[in-house]
Amino acid sequence: MPSLRLNQLDTFAGLQQHATIMDHPDQHLRRLLETPHRLKKYSVRGGGLFMDFSRQRLNDRTLELLFTLEEQLALRKRFNRMCQGDRINVTEKREVLHTATRYFGKQPIMVRGQDIMTGIRRVRDQIKRFSEQVHSGEIKSASGGPFRHVVVIGIGGSYLGTEFVSTALAVHADKGITLHYLSNVDSDNFGSVVKAIDPKTTLWVVISKSYTTAETSANTLLAEQFMRDQGIDPAKHMVTVTSKGSPGDDPNRPVLQTFHMFDYIGGRYSVTSAVGGVPLSLYLGYDRFEQFLKGAEQMDDHTLNAPVEKNIPLIAALVSVWNTTILGYPQQAIIPYAASLAKLAPHVQQLNMESNGKAVDLHGAPLEQPAGVVIFGEPGTNAQHSFFQLAHQGRAFPIDFIGVRTPSCTQYKAPAKGVSNHQELWANLLAQARALAVGRDSEDKARDFPGNRPSTILILSDLGPENIGRLLSFYEARTVYEGFIWGINSFDQFGVELGKKVADGLRGQMAMRNDQPDHPFTGADDISKAYLQFLFGEKSIISV
Amino acid sequence: MPSLRLNQLDTFAGLQQHATIMDHPDQHLRRLLETPHRLKKYSVRGGGLFMDFSRQRLNDRTLELLFTLEEQLALRKRFNRMCQGDRINVTEKREVLHTATRYFGKQPIMVRGQDIMTGIRRVRDQIKRFSEQVHSGEIKSASGGPFRHVVVIGIGGSYLGTEFVSTALAVHADKGITLHYLSNVDSDNFGSVVKAIDPKTTLWVVISKSYTTAETSANTLLAEQFMRDQGIDPAKHMVTVTSKGSPGDDPNRPVLQTFHMFDYIGGRYSVTSAVGGVPLSLYLGYDRFEQFLKGAEQMDDHTLNAPVEKNIPLIAALVSVWNTTILGYPQQAIIPYAASLAKLAPHVQQLNMESNGKAVDLHGAPLEQPAGVVIFGEPGTNAQHSFFQLAHQGRAFPIDFIGVRTPSCTQYKAPAKGVSNHQELWANLLAQARALAVGRDSEDKARDFPGNRPSTILILSDLGPENIGRLLSFYEARTVYEGFIWGINSFDQFGVELGKKVADGLRGQMAMRNDQPDHPFTGADDISKAYLQFLFGEKSIISV
Repeated sequence: MPSLRLNQLDTFAGLQQHATIMDHPDQHLRRLLETPHRLKKYSVRGGGLFMDFSRQRLNDRTLELLFTLEEQLALRKRFNRMCQGDRINVTEKREVLHTATRYFGKQPIMVRGQDIMTGIRRVRDQIKRFSEQVHSGEIKSASGGPFRHVVVIGIGGSYLGTEFVSTALAVHADKGITLHYLSNVDSDNFGSVVKAIDPKTTLWVVISKSYTTAETSANTLLAEQFMRDQGIDPAKHMVTVTSKGSPGDDPNRPVLQTFHMFDYIGGRYSVTSAVGGVPLSLYLGYDRFEQFLKGAEQMDDHTLNAPVEKNIPLIAALVSVWNTTILGYPQQAIIPYAASLAKLAPHVQQLNMESNGKAVDLHGAPLEQPAGVVIFGEPGTNAQHSFFQLAHQGRAFPIDFIGVRTPSCTQYKAPAKGVSNHQELWANLLAQARALAVGRDSEDKARDFPGNRPSTILILSDLGPENIGRLLSFYEARTVYEGFIWGINSFDQFGVELGKKVADGLRGQMAMRNDQPDHPFTGADDISKAYLQFLFGEKSIISV
Repeated sequence: MPSLRLNQLDTFAGLQQHATIMDHPDQHLRRLLETPHRLKKYSVRGGGLFMDFSRQRLNDRTLELLFTLEEQLALRKRFNRMCQGDRINVTEKREVLHTATRYFGKQPIMVRGQDIMTGIRRVRDQIKRFSEQVHSGEIKSASGGPFRHVVVIGIGGSYLGTEFVSTALAVHADKGITLHYLSNVDSDNFGSVVKAIDPKTTLWVVISKSYTTAETSANTLLAEQFMRDQGIDPAKHMVTVTSKGSPGDDPNRPVLQTFHMFDYIGGRYSVTSAVGGVPLSLYLGYDRFEQFLKGAEQMDDHTLNAPVEKNIPLIAALVSVWNTTILGYPQQAIIPYAASLAKLAPHVQQLNMESNGKAVDLHGAPLEQPAGVVIFGEPGTNAQHSFFQLAHQGRAFPIDFIGVRTPSCTQYKAPAKGVSNHQELWANLLAQARALAVGRDSEDKARDFPGNRPSTILILSDLGPENIGRLLSFYEARTVYEGFIWGINSFDQFGVELGKKVADGLRGQMAMRNDQPDHPFTGADDISKAYLQFLFGEKSIISV
């Protein structure tokens, strides 16, 4: 594959030059929003979502330049090759096939001569059968009755996406199962989970691709010991989601069932695999999980097939790179006006920052400036009462607003000021997008709003499983397309290795000291040594 | 008061010039960390905390320049005047006296000829008595027994700080009371709270300084109606925390009790007032709330009295401004290696971004560049598995790491790799700080770590109430000092007004339409009109 990245193209210089024009007062959003048909021209519907990017700082020329990137960088072609099983994770020599996990079509997807859909369907069927057996009580807990609690042991990509989906769909959880997450190695985390469950009706789902993740291993040991202390056989209260042949898939360490995850699915893209499938099917029922998958598949289809000017994730990625690399906004916020989407921002924070926070291109050559942005967010209207002061008058940052046409919860009504709670949410969403864009001049500079602050509005019809699938697929595809444009590998994560290596050394020092009370911490650097002395109660520069 | 701000001083130019030196390879943190006594020279203990800033990108000259700001900008003097009741919130003509809410000394604090400590002590006594009566069962719920649930209705500063403290101290909650938060106007939020409570044993605490906050009013209406539907008298199941004479302090709308908050305490600084005091005393007991106050008081004392070179919040503020304004990092992360500090970052996100996300100085003159930074964070080790790829190899951002010497939960142990879970946390914390600072050269550029990424480590002895108070006071004081250095008013929030005003207009359109089915949305701009048509089911450019 030729080296394809934005800043090796003439278009890059063109965009940079064009950006200086967009800084002119006549290109202020206040002006742009007055031009005819602004919303119609700068909005797009597809894959079950509607996206309004009329309040992004762009005009026809901007889009024209951005849209040329589709062909110049072969963006859709590369997305297609990804879905067909090209080994686009070049550094780790792996395919990238999260889209296959929600593919329900008839075509084979061939990887090294094998149709991987066979394995994917087998795992889906296994999840369906298992979750139905748990719900029917055919698979029983130590109480003699059905399981009532599920604890997911996993960290990072093994839980953030599932947490987003389970939080979003909590109103649909009618299987009598409560879902808990045990991620942090902090034993406080274990303590609070244990307080919330009934051990005799608790199923533990251990999720780790390698089954060697330090935090997950430590928490699994705690869980096993806890079960034994309660007279429960861990083998009958535990399932694993892991790679074939990993230490979590070992006949000598029996568990209720093991569900395989595959080499070609990265942690942060794994929600639609068994990683999300097992806990979400237990919590919501397999049928809802499948609806969620089908929503994601619909957005995948759109992403693959819609031409650039109609392609929601592709346009979102082009706008994101425009904002980040050309206009120079180093951060983005995600503000859903829906309380149940509270965990979307933490999921996309991982998905996007771990994928695209990179310093080298696909060939290992350093980039002129690091790729990626900082992603953060809270639901609206909460965010308005938190950090929107800075959004309006401090540093500007682009925002994705998310609105939902039909609310889930319509049971409680007490109209305030003549509108429903749901209307109140929309009034605020629309007001924020407008106020940020348009601003307001004031003689009193403390009450002056410069405006020209970009945002996009994404609309879902409701908060059902399909739409959560579409939203998940949208942010995955946007992330992948951004990576294609920057010319980076969005699927490795070598940046986490050094920290692990240094931690190994420090853990080794601690373990030695636990074993030999006179171990003098030789081998640690001076500052780490001071910390080790402090932690082991010796005289140290550090005291508190 | 003379105009006092950083970039009007010669020192500002001095710092900018000095920053170019700090970019030289011989000032890379890898080198700086090899200099003798680095930790000893760049760490400080006080107010019950220890702060290690040895991995910030600074040397003796940097500190020398920064420390001159203390006198040039009269920083401690201004902090002192704040605590004494000077009207430093100049735009709103208010004193700023959150420190008084945790003051237990004997000195009066005079505001307009009155000792405000009288009112503060009265409210504290009222909180003590009320919470004890609830715990003893003297104040009964409609069930005839004691209250078992407390729902805080409040948004922004009326809940984020309390949520941080209640989450941090959850292991100490032994009063048989479960605490819930109802903030978002989304009725899903109401629905999930209602699912988790028993209405007959639920006390609702409505918190709003003005008692006119739209979200809080809407949720209070929902709660009152919900109670009436259950045959419960809201007057006997509700207390309010609000300003004297507000609509929440109206004898015609009786409630169990009303606790006053004062004009001179801003929402985001209100955790140690009745805003935090009522829910925290109910949840944890008044004694623990008082311990928390005393920890905050101890840090206030330190902040007031320690000379600049020993002053933890002041040094932290100087380093923060150095990083933001001089070195140009537009964001900061807060990463506590303690699961129970999960809500610290969302609290500081509001506290700091709403306080310092400003564009004008104290006199209303525009700043050269907006003040403030984006604050975000998740607990470690979770954050390592989320966005640390970008932290190590993408855009650099300064990090506050927080470590705890003694863990709360020591009940569950299953040593993995020869260390306890708590040691595992520390090995990771120390490793991350070191890896970010030192980096690692590699021929393979995908595995190259540039290092030179700044961080601070804050150490708490344990996660008891005193230390949570110290931590709260530390971040408040750091925020205030940053504002003093930037020369801004950290206590107003005019930036949230425009959004509210625009929302009023849109809400009005919706209310009219609810009332008159043929209201044509005259008065709305074209784009908002398309949204209104969509939301009311009319033909619109928008569809999904």
